[in-house]
Amino acid sequence: MLTESKQGSADIAALMNDLGTRARAAASPLSIASPEIKNAALEAMAKALTRNEAAILEANREDMARGEEAGLSPALLDRLKLDPARIAGMAEGIRAIAALKDPVGDVIAAWGRPNGLEIERVRTPLGVIGVIYESRPNVTADAGALCLKAGNAVILRGGSDSARSSAAIHACLVEGLEKAGLPADAIQRVPVTDRAAVGEMLKGLGGNVDVIVPRGGRSLVERVQSDARVPVFSHLEGICHLYLDRSADTDMAVSIAVNAKMRRTGICGAAETLLVDREAADRILLPVLSALEEAGCAIRGDEDVCARFPSATPATEEDWATEYLDAIISVKLVDGVDEAIRHIGAWSSHHTEAIVAEDAEAVERFFNEIDSAILLHNASTQFADGGEFGMGAEIGIATGKMHARGPVGVEQLTSFKYRVRGSGQTRP
Amino acid sequence: MLTESKQGSADIAALMNDLGTRARAAASPLSIASPEIKNAALEAMAKALTRNEAAILEANREDMARGEEAGLSPALLDRLKLDPARIAGMAEGIRAIAALKDPVGDVIAAWGRPNGLEIERVRTPLGVIGVIYESRPNVTADAGALCLKAGNAVILRGGSDSARSSAAIHACLVEGLEKAGLPADAIQRVPVTDRAAVGEMLKGLGGNVDVIVPRGGRSLVERVQSDARVPVFSHLEGICHLYLDRSADTDMAVSIAVNAKMRRTGICGAAETLLVDREAADRILLPVLSALEEAGCAIRGDEDVCARFPSATPATEEDWATEYLDAIISVKLVDGVDEAIRHIGAWSSHHTEAIVAEDAEAVERFFNEIDSAILLHNASTQFADGGEFGMGAEIGIATGKMHARGPVGVEQLTSFKYRVRGSGQTRP
Repeated sequence: MLTESKQGSADIAALMNDLGTRARAAASPLSIASPEIKNAALEAMAKALTRNEAAILEANREDMARGEEAGLSPALLDRLKLDPARIAGMAEGIRAIAALKDPVGDVIAAWGRPNGLEIERVRTPLGVIGVIYESRPNVTADAGALCLKAGNAVILRGGSDSARSSAAIHACLVEGLEKAGLPADAIQRVPVTDRAAVGEMLKGLGGNVDVIVPRGGRSLVERVQSDARVPVFSHLEGICHLYLDRSADTDMAVSIAVNAKMRRTGICGAAETLLVDREAADRILLPVLSALEEAGCAIRGDEDVCARFPSATPATEEDWATEYLDAIISVKLVDGVDEAIRHIGAWSSHHTEAIVAEDAEAVERFFNEIDSAILLHNASTQFADGGEFGMGAEIGIATGKMHARGPVGVEQLTSFKYRVRGSGQTRP
Repeated sequence: MLTESKQGSADIAALMNDLGTRARAAASPLSIASPEIKNAALEAMAKALTRNEAAILEANREDMARGEEAGLSPALLDRLKLDPARIAGMAEGIRAIAALKDPVGDVIAAWGRPNGLEIERVRTPLGVIGVIYESRPNVTADAGALCLKAGNAVILRGGSDSARSSAAIHACLVEGLEKAGLPADAIQRVPVTDRAAVGEMLKGLGGNVDVIVPRGGRSLVERVQSDARVPVFSHLEGICHLYLDRSADTDMAVSIAVNAKMRRTGICGAAETLLVDREAADRILLPVLSALEEAGCAIRGDEDVCARFPSATPATEEDWATEYLDAIISVKLVDGVDEAIRHIGAWSSHHTEAIVAEDAEAVERFFNEIDSAILLHNASTQFADGGEFGMGAEIGIATGKMHARGPVGVEQLTSFKYRVRGSGQTRP
């Protein structure tokens, strides 16, 4: 399990391709496993995590010690660290995934044809998912469980910092699979830390990886997006906008702005740019910016904003393109929903945008004309999350437009096929 | 329009990237065009095709003359040839696309959350589609109209053989766009015949092509699948199977087998391999093979089949992997639905498979355990077609599992986004 070694690149390629072949072989029985068997495996995984708490914590102490030695930042060390509460949280998370509706076999659409053929479109697993992540060991449990629920085999490639913790968690997942009679190869972990292993995954392991999900920082996602030869579900950044229309309620504008920016500044759904309708600036701008400032947020404004709010510092064009992930917001006055839509079209990362307005027409234009994964009316951008959408767990948020978009949960990890029932029909 | 020239590769790259930039710019107004405006454009296109019949036929005569000179095969020349009936057919086809339900804005799913948020998933256009095709000039009209209906801009790259015909048809499409006030760049045609232009499209024109659809023979699809750096909707081949279960009705087995193989042998949904349940061989095999032979089909059988049907020639392993697209069928006796599923899993191209059976359990296993785009019960494999599915026109059939699978019609040329309506909600 813990054979973390440096190997030659030919060895790595062979090892990775073997992982791929085994994942593909496991995907087949998994794709027809009943909901009961998959859920039994998930329950056994949750139990194994609790039972093996001591071993997981011991592995995590080793990772932490090496991380401290290697000079990891306190933020990275915090992501890496496990404690009994976090392990219990992983087990809970797996049980929550088990409780989701099984998507496989779900009839998405059904219709009849004049010749008597009855057509159904039903959900099927996607096949083999590759997940590439960094220091959070809990992704091992979340991603493994989510892929299993959707009937997919998964190849997990965690960061080297968390290798021991991930291996200990992975052992619990495999135990769950085996207890339920499912193939152990359904959830595999890349047992080497060489970067070349990631390169092999991005090439698709000879057609044996159907989609890659990167979980981590910008440099990881950038590498995956640029090098992957298979589809990728990801977002590079969340440059999310909040637009306050002339028709906005002032109190609502204030509370949504503060929440969208400041609830958690480090998540992809945090607002980064505030657009305020020039017509409403006199009424709305000062209370909103004062509340943001009071909450600890730095304001970077365009010329008009700086003129009206002296503690704002001037925004440059770069600010409109920046995901701060910090207590900073760029603010611009715009000429109504028109200019808001234009600004968002030019600068958005197509993740999440929100409008505060009472005018239904402005909302409809905002909803229709902006091409982002998630649009919200009178609600905070921080709701951009699979759990908040009621999807249960998510493996990430996608800003691409192919297959998955927005939160990627169990449904988005499926494909579909057509079942056609006849009574002897031949085609004229 | 007819500047068919050979250019330097830097020129080609610049020209193609310009096409991409213009397509992306056109996609934005197109994505919010109303159904009425898009349909007005389609109607104007259909009228322009009829009105410009003489010019299109003249351009086609030039293509035909050059094709004959270049020694194109009679089959290719037939695909290339236009006549008044085929032009009328194109206009009809465009009107049929106009009559389809507009997919853009369609609410696919809607649900509420305990906090009062109302969430909708609505269809949006994909963006910019690249279509790469060969000698059939009618693809220009079909693909252009279908992409427009789904709100997408399209870049059409037809074969050099049909360049003049396609240019004349394309002029009618542009006329329709302009009459309806839509951007002419919404349907662009690559004006050069250099193969390098295809290479540029496959690279994605700097992020300005969202998906490529190849329409043509195996070598084209192979090149696109191997070289494209953007998603591709395609199938390389249709190695479709027909399985006759022990519970099959004999007459139905005969009529479906003859139709699945012989109605048209050159389409991707034609059956290529017949699997017959050994238990039913005495009853079913002879009538089915006799009927196929009588219809002009050559039989390539495994050992058992050859022993029972002397005019069959021995099949080699290669036959199980061959898409004949001809009046030839490979035939194998199998031990029930179990071995049928295993054989299909090993040899299928995941396009279309059919079972003839009265036993519901055998049907359910066939439907659940086979991972192909289309599965049929008691119906011919030749129904694998967007029109037969009631989708209207299709741009092709996809065997991949990402985004589109099976017939690719207007719905499959869309993505989606989320619209969330609140009343001031902030995230705790």
